[in-house]
Amino acid sequence: MPTFRAGIDLGATKIQAVVVGPDHAVVGQARHPTPTEGGPPDVAARIADAVREAAESAGVAVEELGGVGVGSPGAVDQEAGTVASARNLPNWEEPFPLAATLTEALGAPVRIDNDVQVAVLGELELGAGKPYSSFLGVWWGTGVGGGIVLDRTLWLGRGAAGEIGHMVVKRGGARCPCGRRGCLEAYAGRGAMEAKARELHDRGHKTVLFDLMKKRGRNRLTSGVWAAALDKDDHMAEQLVHRAVAALGAGIASAVNLLDVEAVVIGGGLGTRLGEPYVEKIAAAMQPHLFVDSRPPDMLPAALGDLGGAIGAALLVEP
Amino acid sequence: MPTFRAGIDLGATKIQAVVVGPDHAVVGQARHPTPTEGGPPDVAARIADAVREAAESAGVAVEELGGVGVGSPGAVDQEAGTVASARNLPNWEEPFPLAATLTEALGAPVRIDNDVQVAVLGELELGAGKPYSSFLGVWWGTGVGGGIVLDRTLWLGRGAAGEIGHMVVKRGGARCPCGRRGCLEAYAGRGAMEAKARELHDRGHKTVLFDLMKKRGRNRLTSGVWAAALDKDDHMAEQLVHRAVAALGAGIASAVNLLDVEAVVIGGGLGTRLGEPYVEKIAAAMQPHLFVDSRPPDMLPAALGDLGGAIGAALLVEP
Repeated sequence: MPTFRAGIDLGATKIQAVVVGPDHAVVGQARHPTPTEGGPPDVAARIADAVREAAESAGVAVEELGGVGVGSPGAVDQEAGTVASARNLPNWEEPFPLAATLTEALGAPVRIDNDVQVAVLGELELGAGKPYSSFLGVWWGTGVGGGIVLDRTLWLGRGAAGEIGHMVVKRGGARCPCGRRGCLEAYAGRGAMEAKARELHDRGHKTVLFDLMKKRGRNRLTSGVWAAALDKDDHMAEQLVHRAVAALGAGIASAVNLLDVEAVVIGGGLGTRLGEPYVEKIAAAMQPHLFVDSRPPDMLPAALGDLGGAIGAALLVEP
Repeated sequence: MPTFRAGIDLGATKIQAVVVGPDHAVVGQARHPTPTEGGPPDVAARIADAVREAAESAGVAVEELGGVGVGSPGAVDQEAGTVASARNLPNWEEPFPLAATLTEALGAPVRIDNDVQVAVLGELELGAGKPYSSFLGVWWGTGVGGGIVLDRTLWLGRGAAGEIGHMVVKRGGARCPCGRRGCLEAYAGRGAMEAKARELHDRGHKTVLFDLMKKRGRNRLTSGVWAAALDKDDHMAEQLVHRAVAALGAGIASAVNLLDVEAVVIGGGLGTRLGEPYVEKIAAAMQPHLFVDSRPPDMLPAALGDLGGAIGAALLVEP
């Protein structure tokens, strides 16, 4: 019986593959940049390459893999094995049969789920969520995603639960990348933060953010760029991160007032990069909004780090 | 085996008692004003009176009651059968053994739970929530309370889940009766609405709200007063109810974005009084904030009406 499985974290900038053993330990990995041109078949081919490379690094034949799990952005139809409307992937609007394509290429069963749900599942089974019966996972990255664990099970609602980034923290407030107003993500999503930084920069405000970006050969304000700017005490970076933390505090406190979960786990690109000190800042920003403020939830950074999404994806095909 | 049970809805202004039969049908009822002086023993004595009177009206001997359920404000300890910090009841700060006191007076087992949770339980089992696997109950009254039904079970978290009234809809916004800023209840709670109306009235703004209140011999803006002022096209009443509806729209949409429940049931004093047309207004106010706006949750008024809280309380002692 095959005991090795592969997990894929499919992101806008990178494809992270891992191969895990029977105890979920990572025995091999590979990372490729996500194609920025072409379409879904090109992305699928790159995913297959990453799986083969990760298997090779683990000394495992691809034929030995018991299955491949994929955490994907966009609208995932688990039953059909398709992904649609993945806006940050090239020309990926219509539903594409990603599971069937990968099964054909790799000869293993493939399961796909939402990227954030998969990462939260990883934290539930193997990471920061292990000791808790209920917790809220908040994935702070380009957007702000979420996963709700109740009675040690992901609550999915009618399939779209967990959109903590689109809770309203300020009626009539800032425009969100989703087009609505006052969403948490309008203040705390890295995409919205970058747009605001560009706007201020264009208006003549000083910042090292864009110099750091160019120095690193990037065309986006990555989590690493934000962290480096904070290290240099850049005023604009501090102000915009402070604004994000304040919005996260209000939004997460609202969710806790509604659900009274035991813990909150902060992950995502920016959450993982900024880590523990910023988890504490978010906790402090929540405090004035908590209805039962005498026993706030435990606050923890995601424990699985950069590989968490891929490790969580491997759990989708647990034997 | 006793088949009749009593249910009590303990409110700040009234004590509503019902006696229900084996099929949950109401076979007797009584209503008393809640004592405004004295302390917990006086309130308990009045509750016992209401139960006796409801039993008499049903032609049932008190000894025949299989149990008494109570929906109470304040901090309820179900196990201990105590209620503490019931701010709208007279001199009720310390935990008072309400269950033991009523058992002594009535000779029947007594169970107590939070008033809003009990009312939502009633809607789940017997009312508007019957067809749904998941729904959010929003109780729009002096405050804004909530109950979360997932997989046909009330989700209680660590005991305090459902505080939808203290979700933040406007960071840095209006002061809430709870002392925090920007809570939904700061805009939509009848208590906060009345405070705002008094402030505007004192500053010289015209309204019929306080004339209607006096004409009815009240010293508070009851739900009936608000409804009557709306009937007279009173500008201030319209503005403040519109403001409340807008906040309810944002707050409930936030909760739906997080939980993706199938339905929302609107109850409470003001919700029940204003009814269906205002449920539709709340639905319209939610729409621009819904992340998956193509399939909004079903929106319904609570079906059990004024007796819902007491009927739900009777379910606590279901045989």
